[in-house]
Amino acid sequence: MHITKMDIQVRYYETDRMGIVHHSNYLRYFELVRTQFMEEIGLNYPQLEAAGLMSPVVTASCAYKKPCTYGDTITLTCQIAELTKARTRFVYEVWNGDDLLVTGETSHTFVDQHFRVVPTGRKYPEIQAKLKAAAE
Amino acid sequence: MHITKMDIQVRYYETDRMGIVHHSNYLRYFELVRTQFMEEIGLNYPQLEAAGLMSPVVTASCAYKKPCTYGDTITLTCQIAELTKARTRFVYEVWNGDDLLVTGETSHTFVDQHFRVVPTGRKYPEIQAKLKAAAE
Amino acid sequence: MHITKMDIQVRYYETDRMGIVHHSNYLRYFELVRTQFMEEIGLNYPQLEAAGLMSPVVTASCAYKKPCTYGDTITLTCQIAELTKARTRFVYEVWNGDDLLVTGETSHTFVDQHFRVVPTGRKYPEIQAKLKAAAE
Amino acid sequence: MHITKMDIQVRYYETDRMGIVHHSNYLRYFELVRTQFMEEIGLNYPQLEAAGLMSPVVTASCAYKKPCTYGDTITLTCQIAELTKARTRFVYEVWNGDDLLVTGETSHTFVDQHFRVVPTGRKYPEIQAKLKAAAE
Repeated sequence: MHITKMDIQVRYYETDRMGIVHHSNYLRYFELVRTQFMEEIGLNYPQLEAAGLMSPVVTASCAYKKPCTYGDTITLTCQIAELTKARTRFVYEVWNGDDLLVTGETSHTFVDQHFRVVPTGRKYPEIQAKLKAAAE
Repeated sequence: MHITKMDIQVRYYETDRMGIVHHSNYLRYFELVRTQFMEEIGLNYPQLEAAGLMSPVVTASCAYKKPCTYGDTITLTCQIAELTKARTRFVYEVWNGDDLLVTGETSHTFVDQHFRVVPTGRKYPEIQAKLKAAAE
Repeated sequence: MHITKMDIQVRYYETDRMGIVHHSNYLRYFELVRTQFMEEIGLNYPQLEAAGLMSPVVTASCAYKKPCTYGDTITLTCQIAELTKARTRFVYEVWNGDDLLVTGETSHTFVDQHFRVVPTGRKYPEIQAKLKAAAE
Repeated sequence: MHITKMDIQVRYYETDRMGIVHHSNYLRYFELVRTQFMEEIGLNYPQLEAAGLMSPVVTASCAYKKPCTYGDTITLTCQIAELTKARTRFVYEVWNGDDLLVTGETSHTFVDQHFRVVPTGRKYPEIQAKLKAAAE
């Protein structure tokens, strides 16, 4: 099973007037580590897009346990929790040292430029194979 | 049961290079309609914060069915789905005309300025009463 | 001379941990009032884009005098300060009641989908005419 | 003269539906390299803020020459162009390989938690000394 681990420095503008990172930014952090994950397993997003394939988010969820703020360097992990012919589900953890801050997941399909679902398993077996190898 | 309905014009910078609103922005839209909801039931956020109370997001989730983009005016609804002494759960819908684009939910506690949970039911019965009236 | 005036409610996520709206957001506010201005003078952005025309920012500047924050409703104005065949320069003011918070300007060209400059004056005289009427 | 150089990977959500990084994000990139600059010369932002000092942006400007997009790694530089007792002016360049994409500048004062200007030269000579050493 492939796991991507990534350090991210919290940016000032990501905080809000509660003094902490605004909760919406974790979906953006998830995207950073997920695209890194995809890159690592040989599925480069810009190349996929150049080939007419996009991978929008179908569902997303987060559980916020502890906050972080500017000055913190957080560590994200990303792995595939479930893979079907139609959908890939990623899970994420956000750590600050030994503190687990946030857990989350997102699920994705592949679509073409008209946002029609592309059956990757049948039309792009090499993509499906790479996801499968990373999921096992 | 109180329901807030709010029209939002999609902003150009909220789109990404897929040509659609980036999925993280729906959590921000939820916040807009939720703070409007709170305002309508007599719980003004700036006043709550001035009183030392904040209401961070504890869990959040979204299901994305259809995209929207710049030029669209979308309609959001927000209502309370569940209220306990410790937590309030809001549910949301995002519509573009007759198309349901996104559904979601967030749950919240109240905390003080040190992010310690405040038992609203006991310490702020008037806040709890307003939430309860809006939930029924 | 056409002037667009627009009220904007500050959004919670636009604040940072200084407790005020992050300075980068004013460029986003400028975009809101500028696209509204364009709409009002008959130059609808989605239509322009559908016709293959985009209008990127070439230069931008802001002078920040006073901050604003969540809970504030601010008023923006936008007008054309200078129009040439190649470029349109807009100026902006951001007010909170009687307080002038921020002034700024942006200049723009029109480009095609390959980001090549389009000489609007010659190729799209009707666009140039609308800008000229709004500038006078 | 101290110069900070920093590589930044463009994030997907920073692009807009023109397919390029939204112009407002360069002010955010400037902040990243400026806070890194401050850190390098011994002026750590979280420490300054803990001491009750903030450094808001007073003026900002950008000139956009070429766009960049997701998949690009850009290089930022930051240095002090002018230092007075009341104000520090930083200049920035954004490069993509040999292409100069954007130039810009921001000027800053120091303020206390009530946004009153703090005469750094007199009240915090050690801060002024560090800025002066970096500017020469």
